[in-house]
Formats: sequence, structure tokens, C-alpha cells
Amino acid sequence: MARIQARVLKGFRDYLPEDMLPRHRMLQRVEKVFLAHGFAPIQTPALEYSDVLVGKYGEEGDKLLYRFEDNGGRDIALRYDLTVPLARVVAQNANLALPFKRYQIAPVWRAEKPARGRFREFMQCDADIIGAAGSPAEVEILSIGETILSSLEVGPFTIRVNHRGVFDGLAKSLSLDDDEEKAGMVRTLDKLDKIGQERVLGLLVEEIGISAEKMPRVESFLALPKGDLDTAKDFFNDNPEGSEAIENLRETVELIGSTGKGERLLADLSLARGLNYYTGLIYEARLDEQPEFGSVMGGGRYDGLMDIFGAPPHPAVGISLGVDRLHAALQEQAEKTQRTSPTEVLVVVFNREGFSAAARLANQFREGGVAAEVFLNPKTKMGKQFRYADRKGIPYVAVQGSDELADGSVRLKDLQTGEETTLLQADVCNWIKEKTA
Amino acid sequence: MARIQARVLKGFRDYLPEDMLPRHRMLQRVEKVFLAHGFAPIQTPALEYSDVLVGKYGEEGDKLLYRFEDNGGRDIALRYDLTVPLARVVAQNANLALPFKRYQIAPVWRAEKPARGRFREFMQCDADIIGAAGSPAEVEILSIGETILSSLEVGPFTIRVNHRGVFDGLAKSLSLDDDEEKAGMVRTLDKLDKIGQERVLGLLVEEIGISAEKMPRVESFLALPKGDLDTAKDFFNDNPEGSEAIENLRETVELIGSTGKGERLLADLSLARGLNYYTGLIYEARLDEQPEFGSVMGGGRYDGLMDIFGAPPHPAVGISLGVDRLHAALQEQAEKTQRTSPTEVLVVVFNREGFSAAARLANQFREGGVAAEVFLNPKTKMGKQFRYADRKGIPYVAVQGSDELADGSVRLKDLQTGEETTLLQADVCNWIKEKTA
Repeated sequence: MARIQARVLKGFRDYLPEDMLPRHRMLQRVEKVFLAHGFAPIQTPALEYSDVLVGKYGEEGDKLLYRFEDNGGRDIALRYDLTVPLARVVAQNANLALPFKRYQIAPVWRAEKPARGRFREFMQCDADIIGAAGSPAEVEILSIGETILSSLEVGPFTIRVNHRGVFDGLAKSLSLDDDEEKAGMVRTLDKLDKIGQERVLGLLVEEIGISAEKMPRVESFLALPKGDLDTAKDFFNDNPEGSEAIENLRETVELIGSTGKGERLLADLSLARGLNYYTGLIYEARLDEQPEFGSVMGGGRYDGLMDIFGAPPHPAVGISLGVDRLHAALQEQAEKTQRTSPTEVLVVVFNREGFSAAARLANQFREGGVAAEVFLNPKTKMGKQFRYADRKGIPYVAVQGSDELADGSVRLKDLQTGEETTLLQADVCNWIKEKTA
Repeated sequence: MARIQARVLKGFRDYLPEDMLPRHRMLQRVEKVFLAHGFAPIQTPALEYSDVLVGKYGEEGDKLLYRFEDNGGRDIALRYDLTVPLARVVAQNANLALPFKRYQIAPVWRAEKPARGRFREFMQCDADIIGAAGSPAEVEILSIGETILSSLEVGPFTIRVNHRGVFDGLAKSLSLDDDEEKAGMVRTLDKLDKIGQERVLGLLVEEIGISAEKMPRVESFLALPKGDLDTAKDFFNDNPEGSEAIENLRETVELIGSTGKGERLLADLSLARGLNYYTGLIYEARLDEQPEFGSVMGGGRYDGLMDIFGAPPHPAVGISLGVDRLHAALQEQAEKTQRTSPTEVLVVVFNREGFSAAARLANQFREGGVAAEVFLNPKTKMGKQFRYADRKGIPYVAVQGSDELADGSVRLKDLQTGEETTLLQADVCNWIKEKTA
């Protein structure tokens, strides 16, 4: 067969061990939090009938679908997100015990123009509660977010919270009635962080058509002090939509505080979030010391979305983690000890005869919960075996020559410091566990 | 937008919580063993250039590819397995420290005719060692297989092992020189379990063209006693290909025994495995008490495959787990307590005011390592909250009314037995952990 060039499609990438090991650890921690809160994993197909997906993401989204005809002439497409497939699952399973709490961590595909940090295949990590209205479900979702970011040790972070109803109130006070214009206003306000207040105000006048004399009202809205819902309430004092939204938000914030969580929450009425489908709580988290990574987690309440396939109109609230951004932020914080192996200790082998004892020592480590490997070519020179450990970032090497075998000991070398320690074989496992804890 | 029927493509399926929870636990255990042996996860794209895949799986395989043109006119396809993408990765990364030990657990797509238990999207779970020749790497792969099946608690199992060279020896003694005919002989012998010895012998004569008078030699080959390599050696006494294969096999079997593993191994010269690319060790595991599930794990040495993209010809040995079959076997063994939630304890809520205390109790469980949820609608009647736990298969319900709150206690109800226990709040976590251990 003709030799083919080994290459990856533009906008796609391989994750090699040095990327996957920290990513895997991160996702394990995330899953642990989801499971601890009673969220169950589900899995949906990568391919769906195109009509299940088309029209759910706007005209722009439709163009980004990987859509094609299969061998049987069916019009099919790769999933674009995990939310529409969830709505499909809810519609097809009328007997789900509610609230239905599920998480899914899986790739999605979008034929976007590739750019730095933007890929055509990327991981989404979503958890949602379907079928629970009101503050308790919002408290749970926010607690999960706070617990996850704390457990990832990404440093201090802030979860800004807001309520979509606030923008209904604002729109009303600007005499903006048209739904399209309202959505446009929200989308424009969502650009605050990116383009700044001045340009946002400009766009509101030029593109959304709000009269320039109303801009002082928008300015004082944007100037509302963060974390101060009393002043916000005053701002909306003659505006029922705005007042109700503030009260809903206050209820959720106070309730989460009473459960011992919510420390990282900050009410911020300028937080917009672009997506159209939110109906209540919205929130977004950023890393205080790495704001350049933007939103690393976000979500909100979207009570209308689950009925797109004819399911009863379930209330819903969800969370979505920015896996790639969190991974990148963690990588930036990590020391640059590139590890390309999960192995904690390499057991070296002196010769063919020594392999069995080395393999038994490796098995002892594994059974004790320490990832271990034995060097697989007994004829390799000792220096090369040590270099192998070094190249893969394996922190320890265990040596058991004939002397050590005779007196039941093991020599352990720390490859970072060069230090050597000789221990009884029975003690090596705990020693490494303490060192790597 | 027009209402679209919620449905899944033929040959695809959703995995809901009752399927995913045990599947997730199983894969967690498998990953733990891979990691403990120093295998690192990698991830490759679902989509590849078609020419990377085409021609690697035979004509039949090419027809089963999900292949299409993307928006940019590229000829692309969904991956068909994880082995060819691995070969691509090895070719593209000449600087990998060898041996390269990776695992990947990911879906693959094949447009096969759907049938019971056969899907067009299914999970593959592979671990491979690239760049290590000889018995030690084979010992490691076989140990991993044995450790995984033991840790999954699927009951007794047998790993049949053989060496591909045995068939070179057999072919020679049948005067079969042509490579195509040899491959045909192996493919035919691979059908032994499915169609029986008589029909296999028939096919060898009719389809492969081996003369009927040579069938007694094949019959005595197939009659070689399992587990007895001395008799096998005698069978090949004037046949260097066969003798060498037996010696290689013996070396691996003896070496694994010397490391304290290999208890479940059985040398079986009739084990063929259909795939063309094996060059040395081959093996396959079955469950002794559920033989109807067929091979649940298998693999072998394939020293030529990694160079299909121009990489240096690395030796390679691998293992592949039959995730769906193992899952099905475990499901069949499991009691039929359908759990649709990972939650171990549901904290019920008496009223709105009681939510905070209930949420704090749930947080206490979670921090103690017990998956917990609080009922999210405080207005729901108590009976309905208990029914929710019952429907989801949640084993315990925690009740903390005003009496219990006053004296710092919690009432725990076991939903299976109906038994109630009242404990100090500080003790509930350990109590549930002991019960569910």
C-alpha cells in the first residue's frame, strides 16, 4: 500500500501524555464532585439525525455543523453541543424520575475557523438539573461550581451572578419592547469585558437603535456597585420586572450563604452572557489571578429549552466547565516538570535473571497504590534505564541488585535531588506514598 | 421552528444512568490498572484524513468507514479503531521516549449492519507498549489483563495464549507456502469456536485448497493437549518455525509465572485470532461461567504495524478489552436493583426553612466521601420525596426534623429493609460508609 503522510486535520489535535495526564486528573476531580452531588453520567451518540440539531444554534451554528449523508442516505451530523442531545433524551424518556440530574463530559464538533486556542473538536463538560424550579436547585448548581474550582486548586476565583430578568427591567426603562432588540441589547452588553463600556454604549445607539439620550440610564445601571443588591433594588424601584429579578437573585444568594457555601459569589448586574435561552439565574467564573483566561465556568437557568422536542416544559438549570481554559490555566501554574508517564517509580533490571524479582517488586508497588513500571529490556545498560526515567519525568528509581535482594532491601533514588535511601522492601511503598502525597 | 421527532440513529444508542453507572465504575477500575502500570492516556481526534484510514482495514473495512467531505472539501472519516491513529501518533512523534506505553478509551465508528449487541458506535479500550521486544513486555501486558479481569470481579476466567509462529510451522508441515493461503488458514482456524472442527476442516480443503490427505495432520494439531508445551514441542520436532514459536511461548509463560502472575493462563495452540497483523504472542480471555459472551479481552504482538506511516519498525504488543461484553456480563451477574443515581443518601426537606440545614447535612456527607443529595423542592410532600429515592434506587434517606435538629441527631432509613436508625450527626457519614462498603 502507498505510504501515506501521517498528519492531523486542521483545527484538530492529539493530546499526548504530557497534556492528558493533568487533564485526566482534572476531569477525575470534576467527576468526583458531580457524583458526590448525585449527578449520574450519561452518554449520547456522536452522530445525530441532522434535523435533531439544525435550527437549534441559529443560522451561524447550522453552517458550523459537520453534516453529511451516511451510506444509507440518511442526513446526519456530529453533535454541536451536549444540551440539545440532552433535550432529546428528556423528550424520549418520559418516565425519568425528576429532577433528572445528569453530567456528560464528551467532545463536540464545530467547523469553525481555527485560531489560537480554538479547535474544531473540543471537550464539553456539563451538568444539569432538569425538573426543579426555584432557588434550591440554583444553590446546588452554584455550590457544585464553587466546590469544583476549589478542588482544582486554580487559586482564588470569583463567580459573578446575575438574573436575566434584570435586562427585562432595564429594557423596559429604556422603552425597548421588541424581543429582537432586547436580545441584541443583551448580546451587546455581553461584550463589555472585551470592548469596554464606551464602545458598548456606542453600539447600543448605532446597532440596537436605543436613543442616545437614554445612555445615562445605561451608564448608571452599569455603575451599580457589585455585591450590593440594595442599591440595585433602588435602581429598579418603580420597575416590577427588575425588582422581581433582584429579589430572585437575593433569595438564591442568601440561601447559598445559609448552607455554608457561596463565599466566592459576587452579584454583578452587568454580567450578561450572550446565549438567548437563559430565563433566570446566570453566572460566570473567572480566575482572580489569571483573568486573561476569561470565563472558566458558567451557566444559568433555562426553563424553556427542554421542550424543543415536545417534552413537557421542564424547568432546568445547568453548569458548563471550560475544560480547555482550566487546563491551560493549571498548566501555566504548574512547574515545568514535564511528565509523560503516570509512573511514580521505575524498577530497573540488571539482567535477564533479575527480571522476575523486579516485576514482583513492581507488583508490590502497584498493589500498594503506587504506579510502577519495570524496565522492559533487561539487556539495557543501567545508565540508559535511568535516562528513560528522567526523560519521562518519573520521580523515583528503585534498585534491587544482588546485595539488596540478599538482605531484603531496596535502594530508592530521587531523580530530582539525586538523594539515595535504602529501605526494607516492606517499607518502600509507604515511603514513596508519603513523598508523593 | 417545526417540532422535530426526538429519535436516535439506527445502530446508535443512548446510555442512561442505569447503564452508565456500572459502566463508569468498570472503566474507572480498568484505568486504575493501566495507570498503576505506568500507561499514560492519550486522545486522538474522532475525525482523520480519509487516506490515513483507508486501506488499513481491508476492502470490507473501507466500506464501513463514515467517510465524507467537510466544508473545506477535505476527504475525511471517523476513526474505525484506535490502533491506526496510534500508529499515526508514533510516526508523527519521532522523539517519544521508548517504550511508549499508552492507553485510550474512546468510541469508534463502523457502518455495520446493526444486529443484537452490534452497534455502529462502540467503545474501544486499548493499551499498548510500543518499542519493547521480547517476553518482558508480553509478561506485562498479560499481567495487566489478568489484574483487570480479577479486579472487575467477573468470576473465574481463562486467558488462552498462543504464538502466531505456530501457524507458520503448521503451514510448512502442510506444504502451504503462499502468504495469502496461510492467512486464509489462520482465518479459518479462528472459526473453530463458532462452527466446530468438522466444518473448519471442510473449509480448509474446499476454500483454502489444502489437500484432504493432510487433514489428519491438522486434526492431530488441533488435538494437542492444552497447557502442555512439551507435547507441542514434540509435534514440531523437525520443524524450526513451530519449535521456535513454542519456545517463545514457553519463555513468556514461565517468566510470568516467576513474577507471581499468570495463574489464569492456558497455552492453547488452536487459538488463532483472525487479524492478519499479529507476529508473535496472541491471547484471548473468556469467562468460565459465561462462555456465551465470547472473547472479553484479547491482543498480542504485532511488530510490523507501527511502520505503516513510515515510523521506524517498532516492536509492539497490546491488549484490547471488550467493554460492551464485559459490561453485559457484569450486568447479568448483578442483582437487578436498578440504580439510576450515584446518590447513597437523600436528605429530605420538611419546608423552605429546613432547606439550609438539609443542604449543610448533604455537604457533610459529600465531604466525608458519601454521595448525597438534598431534595430540591421543599414544598414536596414527604411521601413523594421517599418515592423519589425509591425510584432512583437511592439506598438511604436521612431525616432531620426539628426534634433531631434540636439534639444534633439524624434519622437514617434503609429503603431496602425499612429499618430506621437514629445517630449523632457526627457519626452518620461513617455509618453509611460502612453499610455501603
